[in-house]
Parts: sequence; structure tokens; C-alpha cells
Amino acid sequence: MGGALAIRPSAALLSDLFLSSHHRVLLRCRNNSIHLRTTASPQQPPRRRLATVSPMASAYKPDEARVPPALQLPTPPVTKFKIALCQLSVIPDKERNIAHARKAIEEAASKGAQLVLLPEIWNSPYSNDSFPVYAEDIEAGGDAAPSFAMLSEAARSLQITIVGGSIPERCGDRLYNTCCIFGTDGKLKGKHRKIHLFDIDIPGKITFKESKTLTAGEHPTVVDTDVGRIGVGICYDIRFQELAMLYAARGAHLICYPGAFNMTTGPLHWELLQRARAADNQLFVATCSPARDTGAGYTAWGHSTLVGPFGEVIATTEHEETIIVEEIDYSLIELRRSNLPLGNQRRGDLYQLVDVQRLNSQ
Amino acid sequence: MGGALAIRPSAALLSDLFLSSHHRVLLRCRNNSIHLRTTASPQQPPRRRLATVSPMASAYKPDEARVPPALQLPTPPVTKFKIALCQLSVIPDKERNIAHARKAIEEAASKGAQLVLLPEIWNSPYSNDSFPVYAEDIEAGGDAAPSFAMLSEAARSLQITIVGGSIPERCGDRLYNTCCIFGTDGKLKGKHRKIHLFDIDIPGKITFKESKTLTAGEHPTVVDTDVGRIGVGICYDIRFQELAMLYAARGAHLICYPGAFNMTTGPLHWELLQRARAADNQLFVATCSPARDTGAGYTAWGHSTLVGPFGEVIATTEHEETIIVEEIDYSLIELRRSNLPLGNQRRGDLYQLVDVQRLNSQ
Repeated sequence: MGGALAIRPSAALLSDLFLSSHHRVLLRCRNNSIHLRTTASPQQPPRRRLATVSPMASAYKPDEARVPPALQLPTPPVTKFKIALCQLSVIPDKERNIAHARKAIEEAASKGAQLVLLPEIWNSPYSNDSFPVYAEDIEAGGDAAPSFAMLSEAARSLQITIVGGSIPERCGDRLYNTCCIFGTDGKLKGKHRKIHLFDIDIPGKITFKESKTLTAGEHPTVVDTDVGRIGVGICYDIRFQELAMLYAARGAHLICYPGAFNMTTGPLHWELLQRARAADNQLFVATCSPARDTGAGYTAWGHSTLVGPFGEVIATTEHEETIIVEEIDYSLIELRRSNLPLGNQRRGDLYQLVDVQRLNSQ
Repeated sequence: MGGALAIRPSAALLSDLFLSSHHRVLLRCRNNSIHLRTTASPQQPPRRRLATVSPMASAYKPDEARVPPALQLPTPPVTKFKIALCQLSVIPDKERNIAHARKAIEEAASKGAQLVLLPEIWNSPYSNDSFPVYAEDIEAGGDAAPSFAMLSEAARSLQITIVGGSIPERCGDRLYNTCCIFGTDGKLKGKHRKIHLFDIDIPGKITFKESKTLTAGEHPTVVDTDVGRIGVGICYDIRFQELAMLYAARGAHLICYPGAFNMTTGPLHWELLQRARAADNQLFVATCSPARDTGAGYTAWGHSTLVGPFGEVIATTEHEETIIVEEIDYSLIELRRSNLPLGNQRRGDLYQLVDVQRLNSQ
């Protein structure tokens, strides 16, 4: 961290210093001032270090490259399981979209999927005009949230985990782009409201401003499920590498990004960003797009994909409606982290990524 | 930042609080303690905000996503110029390697290159046995550093900027993997010692431990040249996204990575990482590898590449010896940052990347 405060104690004495977080305090006297310097604490549990250590390695402080220090990767409840990516067609008929998604989830489960991922905005056309019309009041529930209710029921009756893509959510006078995560008991385990709104302007190609109608979420989302610790981002969230870094430091095995890239940014960046997040953070990344509808106002790129912790594409598809069912093997995470021990090689003496909410919660 | 200290003032009074850095201090009394909370200062110069601002945008603090706040992109001395990537063959004959590189630099300059980038370890075979033998004492200079002397002379006589790949450097009893950057006057403008040593172990594929012989550098390197602000990393440095983020926040137009990826990590990650660094940070990335020599102990992947600020490959090559000469147009940086205004969309309220040395130097 290295935040430096200079405190000039005119009539003051500092008698005791206590630590409220992971910081220790170095106290220096210079001129008439007392300088406090905060640094990450050496009392944090030590992590594995590289066997071969270079002469200056003690200065590198890899643990401090994440503030608070990165959590150990938790042991997942299952090592191998099947994930399904349901690349659904979406039409301007909410009732049909819900029934259609229900059928796809059932098919995925029948093929052995223990985790089902749906696309971004799968119950509504992707447009600022549609968001208010198709939005559901998740907190009110019942008739006010039929998409939500279907996902909960499907998860419970099929005993699977569902990362429910996203739907427009109404909460008071605000709208969000929201992903609900359901456990095998059908209960809501977490809710991710898109943190980074899709406001881009590539003249002649694609201009869109989600912020015209939507409000951005206020929290990163990591959920412990029966199929491991899952971080969630929605579409444009994937462009912000900090979010994936933060999820990795919170011990995620897998990051799920429901997303509807378009015909411009799709070929440019969709696979690139997924593979980069997976390889840089040495974890699994799964994405799920709506199927392409060239008649729609917003044309989705498709190409839902599963990427392994070496940045390798494990499964992908074109743009038509389809369901990918593929195995995830979490033992690959440990393998790749032993091949390339990036976590022990980071230079906490030079750069540090701060997870603000995790830090403040300590 | 948000580092929180709890100070219990038993006989103490805190009368004054002064700020030594970019921090402001929030003071809270709770029980018998005074809590200091450091946060980035609102007194920092305001940066451009997105025209369309969502209701909660004031909480997002994009400026605080980099600590200290990201510098404005400086106006480069030239907007368009030619860069040369010299993918050189390297043999176990230092004198030949120096003469060979000299000839390539001359050819590049004759084709209009104002900036020449050389490969990692171009004057020596890439092996822990060779590093001590081929190393040069750059600080001693003269006969102790013939590769260094050639680069300086070539830059001066051809009036070009050279990012001199890397050579093994001896300094006291330590060895470094070092890149020297020369201005058009032949003077040394900067020296990057590889920060992240290449210690990897992919059994049956590639195992290498640079740390057996080398010491890691202690500083990120950004240099202002006649062809813009250039950040430098060497090979394995490219795996650490934090370094590229930090260079972007320091106002780099271009990051140069001399690098010798291998036949395992090359096809997996070489282009992926370059494109990700360029797209995520919206700047140019140039890489330069030695040509492939399948008879060598370490077989380089080749594929030197220039990538634009949309992550687009502008020029690349296979593995044979060659010189790529290609135009860089820095106006693309501003264009892509206006297309996707990531810098104004980051969530400084959720994550912050700290540039430790820049922070401490303030």
C-alpha cells in the first residue's frame, strides 16, 4: 500500500498504535512530524514460495501484490463436473423466452450438466427500449419476477447450479442488468448487477449507452456453490482486468461472463479477453452469448466458450442456437499454477491490486 | 487505497493532520479509538468524464482506480513513424552477433525506421551457462561492453532510437537480463533489468530457472524518446498484467517487450499476451524474438509482432530471420480511447492498482 500520512503532533503524544486491518505501521520521526507508513502485514499466513529463490527475492513481497493478500485456492466440492453453456435464441416474447430457456436447462441437465450458464439478457431483446418493459422486480418475486421464479424452480427440481445469465431488474426507480445465481436447492446464492455499463461509441459500427436506462451495480460477486467458487461478471465487465484479478485473489475457480458482444467487438475481442482473463489469472472462464439474430436491433456475436487455466479454448461454437456441454477439471488449476507459479512471482514491492470492499470489510 | 489504522490515544491528543501524499484522512471516533482512513484525494486534477453519466456515477471514482491517478497521455513528439523489429539469428559467437545486429539496424534505418527493437539476449545463446560468459559490464563501458558500445554508436550515427533487446549484464557479483534504450544522440536513456525472472516448470516440455544465475531488476522502466513514451518489459515480464497497467498509467504510448518465448509457451501465449496488453491498456505493443534455431539448447518461438491499441495485429512474421518495418500511428490511441473510454469507466471504488515506486516518490 504505502499510503503515507504525516501527523504533526503539536501538543500531542502518540502512545499506542493498534492495527485494525492487515496493516502494520512504521513510525518515523522527521523534523517536527511523525510519519506513519502503512504496509501489508508480515503476520499474514505465509504462502508457498518458489523453490529456487534469487538473491534479492526477499524484497519482492509477492503476497503484497494483492491487498488484502490473495486467499488460498479453496478445495472445490467437486474436481470434475460438466458445465452447459446455453446459447439461446431470444425473441420479443418474454413468455416464450422463459419456456424456451426452461427447456434448454432441462436438456443440459439431461446431458449431465451440474452447472448451467445462460446468456446476457435472455428474456428480453437487448435494447434500452426493452429493458424497462421486460424488467422484473426480483425482490418482490412471484408474478413480478417470472424469469427469476423459473430459474429457481429449475435449479431445485433438476438439482443443478444455475448462473442465470442476466435479465433487466427493476429495483425502486432503478434498472439493473442482473445475474442471479441459484444453488441446487433453488435458493438464490448471489446476485450480480453489471458493474461496468456498456457505454461505447465506435462511429459507423456500434454505439450503445446502457447508462441511458441502467444503473451500475455496486459489488463484485463471488459465490460458493456445489461446483466451486464462482466469480460473475456481465459482458462489458470482462474488459476490466482488475475484476478478474480480484476474483482470482478471492479464490475463484471459475469466472462466468454472460455476455452479448456484437459484430464489431465480437471478432476483435470476445475470445481474446476470455483467454487473457483465464491465462493471466490461471482459472477457468466460461462465457455465454445469445444466439445471433441478424434481424434484431442489436446483433449478438454468439461464440459461447469455455476456456481453461492455460488460456486454452476447451469448447466453443459458432453463432447459432446450441447447447455446449463440456467437462471442467479443476485439477488443471493447480497444475498450471505449479507450471507457471505467477502468484509467487509477482512484485508486491512494485505494484499492488487493492480489493477495496474486501479490505474495508476486514 | 483505504488502508485503515486504529490509533488508541491513551494520553494522546491528535491536534493536526497534514497530508504528505495524495491521501486525505477521514477521522472517526469509535469506542476509545481514533480511526484514520486513507483515501485518494479529491484535490487531484479532474479528468474527462463520460458524457452520459449514470445516476450513481459519482461513486465510481475512476481516477482512483490507479494510485497515484493515471497521468494524461502526453503528446508524442511524432504521431506517425516507422518501427523495425529485427528478428535476428543468434549464434555462440559474440563478435559475429554484434556485427550481425549492427548490419540489421543499418538495414532497418535505411528502410526508414526511426525506432529499432532487438530481441531478448541477442548477443549470446539463451542459457544459464552462457549468461556469465557473454555478460557485459555496462557501467564500466568500453571494452567491457562491446554490445552496448555498438548500440550507442549505431543510434548516434544513424540518428535513431534503439530499444536494444537485451544482453546479460554483469554488475558487481550479480548478473541481470538487461535492455538498454538509446536516444538519437547515442546516449543511454534508460536501462531495464528484467523484473520477473523466467522460472517455469512444465515437465516434459520446458523447464528453465533464470534465477539460477540472474538477479531480477528493481524498477519498472519508462523512457521519453523522440518517438514517444516507451515502457519496457523483457519476455516473462509480459505475463504480469500489472506492469503494463502501470506503464499505461504512467502515460506510455508503446510497450516494447524483447522476448524469447519457446515452442511450448509460444503457440499458447505469445500473441495472446501481446494482444491482451495492448487491448486492455489501449496502447501499442511491440515484441521482438530471436529467430528460431532448432539446434540451440533453447528454441525460440519467433513471431515478432506489432499490435495496435485495439489489440489488432498490425504486422507479424514466422520464425525465420527477418526485419519487420511497419508504421505506428499514435492517433489510434486517442481514437480507441474515445471508442471505448475504459479509463473513465473503471471502478476506483472497487479496485485500485498502486504503482508503489511512483507513489513513494511523490
